Amino acid sequence: MPRYKLTIEYDGLAYCGWQRQANGLSVQQTIEEALFKFTGQTLQIQGAGRTDAGVHATGQVAHVDLAKDWRTDQVRDAINAHLWPARIAVLSAELVPETFEARFCAIQRHYLYKILNRRAPAVIERGYVWHLARQLNADAMHAAAQMFVGEKMDFSTFRDSECQASSPMRTIDSFEVTRQGEMIEIRVSALSFLHRQVRSMVGSLEHVGSGKWSKADLQSAFDAKDRKRCGQVAPFDGLYLTRVDYPKYSSSTRT
Amino acid sequence: MPRYKLTIEYDGLAYCGWQRQANGLSVQQTIEEALFKFTGQTLQIQGAGRTDAGVHATGQVAHVDLAKDWRTDQVRDAINAHLWPARIAVLSAELVPETFEARFCAIQRHYLYKILNRRAPAVIERGYVWHLARQLNADAMHAAAQMFVGEKMDFSTFRDSECQASSPMRTIDSFEVTRQGEMIEIRVSALSFLHRQVRSMVGSLEHVGSGKWSKADLQSAFDAKDRKRCGQVAPFDGLYLTRVDYPKYSSSTRT
Repeated sequence: MPRYKLTIEYDGLAYCGWQRQANGLSVQQTIEEALFKFTGQTLQIQGAGRTDAGVHATGQVAHVDLAKDWRTDQVRDAINAHLWPARIAVLSAELVPETFEARFCAIQRHYLYKILNRRAPAVIERGYVWHLARQLNADAMHAAAQMFVGEKMDFSTFRDSECQASSPMRTIDSFEVTRQGEMIEIRVSALSFLHRQVRSMVGSLEHVGSGKWSKADLQSAFDAKDRKRCGQVAPFDGLYLTRVDYPKYSSSTRT
Repeated sequence: MPRYKLTIEYDGLAYCGWQRQANGLSVQQTIEEALFKFTGQTLQIQGAGRTDAGVHATGQVAHVDLAKDWRTDQVRDAINAHLWPARIAVLSAELVPETFEARFCAIQRHYLYKILNRRAPAVIERGYVWHLARQLNADAMHAAAQMFVGEKMDFSTFRDSECQASSPMRTIDSFEVTRQGEMIEIRVSALSFLHRQVRSMVGSLEHVGSGKWSKADLQSAFDAKDRKRCGQVAPFDGLYLTRVDYPKYSSSTRT
């Protein structure tokens, strides 16, 4: 049974999140239904990250075992043909060793959060950015965000109350806040994140950018290790899972 | 009666085009209704370019005369409040001389056309790009497009059969085709364009990019001055009116 790694883009607004749920259509279910139409098999896929409802992805990764030895471009094109017009697409398919697990083999996950910072509401990007009319200081946000970068820190303040992870300790590898005109882009990379950690950190950083909080206020909230001290949770609109990294393995694009 | 210049963004998918029409909701009508709610007056606005249904704008310009001497930020914010949740926003309002006419004073109009060039269909950008799966040579498209740049040339081949302009002669100032990863961006600037001229030129350039046409084939179609020789008309999805330029005038942002 050859194993395929799928790199996937989706529009989070159209789904109740990545993971199959009793109520609502998930990205996972939609892809599994397309796989059934393609192969005639009932297949389960496993994703690298369980994004919430409304959260977008331009580089989610999942793996699936197919009974037949398809060419990778056939896998990509056939799933896309059966997905259409769903707001999901397979960007690439690769053959990977049977030991490859999208979730457990990941060594780094990358998220992007987009803030449209201008007086006028979002129009073309509506649903794909967090619109904030008050002028934000992106440099101050970037400087303050560096407190999140480091080995095994306690992110209890920035963790959803329903987070099921056994530990609140996480290691963030990088946290960049940059402004390009009216758009503020926030890029965060880590091995793994707690539930709503990125949105909780971004929401609190907004307080720093708007001047409501000083850097010391953010540090105090972080040090408190208390969910009640989280500034706010940023809306899902602006969040994208952009990439998942794996150790080098002998993938191939059988053609 | 102070005259205001409005710079406007809109999502073309939501409207039947810029101009008021008997059938369907236009951008112009939607803004005029918001102006009525704001001022109590029945006002007419005039746009710099009459974009077709489905065509987007990030920098359309219109002017309107208000009975009262509002601050420019009040004008912008009040129209936006009354527009909501329409997929239209006023990015800025400026006070301009009474001689300012959005359409007739314009000295240059800038359009952007976006092509998503990859195997997988468009997902997050669906409706906002032209998706083309076949690999295009953007450098060849750029080189060929330079034949369109120059003084008063006859664009009969690239003009819609229902174009109402009295002459097919137009002067294109610049035509740039660039690739950034999977996205091809085409930027065209001119004093004015014929009806569907940009989409007709882009559609024909696609034939050059895919190798179906040589540069000489495009030149031959151009020289024929015959609408039947237009390669194809690119879809509206990828087209944006991004900016309209005016001579320097004594505008002000009364605050």
